Amino acid sequence: MSEFRRDILTDRWVILAENRAGRPDEFVPAAPRPIVTPCPFCLGNEQETPEAVACYPPSRAASPHPSWEVRVVPNKFPAVDFSGADPSARAESPTTCDGRGAHEVVIESPHHVVTLSELTDEQVEWTFAAYQDRLRHWQDESDLAYGLVFKNARAAGGASLEHTHSQLIATPMVPVEVAGELARCREYQRKHAKCPICEITIRELTAEQRIVTRTEHFVVCCPFASRFPYEMMVMPSKHASRFEDLEQEVCNELAHLVRHLISRLERTLAEPAYNYWIHTAPWNRGRDVGYFHWHIHLAPRLTRMAGFELGAGYFINPVSPEAAAGRLRCREY
Amino acid sequence: MSEFRRDILTDRWVILAENRAGRPDEFVPAAPRPIVTPCPFCLGNEQETPEAVACYPPSRAASPHPSWEVRVVPNKFPAVDFSGADPSARAESPTTCDGRGAHEVVIESPHHVVTLSELTDEQVEWTFAAYQDRLRHWQDESDLAYGLVFKNARAAGGASLEHTHSQLIATPMVPVEVAGELARCREYQRKHAKCPICEITIRELTAEQRIVTRTEHFVVCCPFASRFPYEMMVMPSKHASRFEDLEQEVCNELAHLVRHLISRLERTLAEPAYNYWIHTAPWNRGRDVGYFHWHIHLAPRLTRMAGFELGAGYFINPVSPEAAAGRLRCREY
Repeated sequence: MSEFRRDILTDRWVILAENRAGRPDEFVPAAPRPIVTPCPFCLGNEQETPEAVACYPPSRAASPHPSWEVRVVPNKFPAVDFSGADPSARAESPTTCDGRGAHEVVIESPHHVVTLSELTDEQVEWTFAAYQDRLRHWQDESDLAYGLVFKNARAAGGASLEHTHSQLIATPMVPVEVAGELARCREYQRKHAKCPICEITIRELTAEQRIVTRTEHFVVCCPFASRFPYEMMVMPSKHASRFEDLEQEVCNELAHLVRHLISRLERTLAEPAYNYWIHTAPWNRGRDVGYFHWHIHLAPRLTRMAGFELGAGYFINPVSPEAAAGRLRCREY
Repeated sequence: MSEFRRDILTDRWVILAENRAGRPDEFVPAAPRPIVTPCPFCLGNEQETPEAVACYPPSRAASPHPSWEVRVVPNKFPAVDFSGADPSARAESPTTCDGRGAHEVVIESPHHVVTLSELTDEQVEWTFAAYQDRLRHWQDESDLAYGLVFKNARAAGGASLEHTHSQLIATPMVPVEVAGELARCREYQRKHAKCPICEITIRELTAEQRIVTRTEHFVVCCPFASRFPYEMMVMPSKHASRFEDLEQEVCNELAHLVRHLISRLERTLAEPAYNYWIHTAPWNRGRDVGYFHWHIHLAPRLTRMAGFELGAGYFINPVSPEAAAGRLRCREY
């Protein structure tokens, strides 16, 4: 018997149907063949990308010979850019506005590695520091409302280039997924006088069965209503609304933790495609969003989004989060 | 310069970024290799599926030798089934309930064809008649709230079997995508004293640029805020809330139209994976949902849903609906 589960953060139902893991699949996904061309993200090919807006470690940025561990560049094929008109024009035409915003790429290593788990300590720390810096940079633009940091790894994760990288897209509107979580957090606070993510953290630590790991400042679980097999959520154990306010040492702890989680995924599954994205509070412009509890969603991409997912907005997950967490916990690191 | 567009039915923003069509892709998707095994959906292999719940034409169902054009069977690996407890148990535990519901497969041809465009007139007509019959069948179950009819074609469309088929999943709750559209329709009606989809139909027919085709009873356009390249929406030109109430002749017209649209897609794009899903009104149980205007969403699957789409809930579409409709209109049929 399958089970419906509702996610209290999004109000979406998920169908856990473990029997579906056994169904036949006539389409054997042949591994996509990466084309061997000079990689624009590798050391020495800096001229293939737009000019860097940040380099790490910062001290080396000015050296005459390029020497960097992490490099941030504007996306060469941006979904949004900063040349459009201020979207206050939206007031007139509420269904369209210029694609104003920012679209940047964080190149996480000068070498051609294909997954975050292969980064050095220094590279993964600078990567997360770059996320913070770029979010802080763009929040000062008064007509931008939100910056989403996300990562697409491997072909089924939506990567178009193999070399490990993440992206930031800043937009004039708060994305609907974030707006939904914000509204649920506010509503939960009003009704229960507490934060739903603080509540989830306590409940999961008590129940134990969906906990993957914990560190001094973070708790990781497979969410109760996981949409994807082996989905994880990384939550700071102490309530905080903004990822970009993390102190450097705690941010380093987070960077190591995320690398560790991806390693665990890769020891559990064969070269999984994955995405992660950071849900931090919107740039509040005076509004209080302190009730929001920032977190990271990490989703391996083993299942396909098909007609039911698109038409219903619900997901069918063939691996229960209890089984997923159990398997992820077993993997020695 | 890209453009943001808001969809008035879902309140979701889309980013139209045609420049992104030119970006390199290191991952050449190798065509998945269909395994050659006896297909459980082919004539003669009926014992490989659960027993049929309907066969078309109905007159031939009782004949001693199987002879059918379209056949409806319970899904062998159901996401939900009808053995679970009545979900009124939900009241106690609002975040979980048994996976009670129905999951059926409509096998659209006795022969091994892989896309709806290759069906005969009779087969495509019986397929749409089967959708109506099965929706009418399940709506009588008082603890089910909604039946979603959808189709996954080709591997990237989420099909696990190649033989052309569609599915119906009936659930005790109204899916969030439908609930959202319902709420927007009701709100629009309240504010503007008219139906937003009637309004879209009129506006699109006047603007012309996003119209793909029209027939006596239907209008097809590429939606103003299309999430997917070459996405289409099929709308009855006269307001109606329930697809399953269509008269047989008009339902046949619709069946031919959908086959025609898929043919056009396949003449425009190389063997595209695609999904479609029918948004009809929920089983209202006395509540008035007459303000809803049923329709079909048809989406080729050329782009990957990645971290931005999952984290933001917004889509980046590299083909404008104006360009898409223009190209689809050009294809002679």
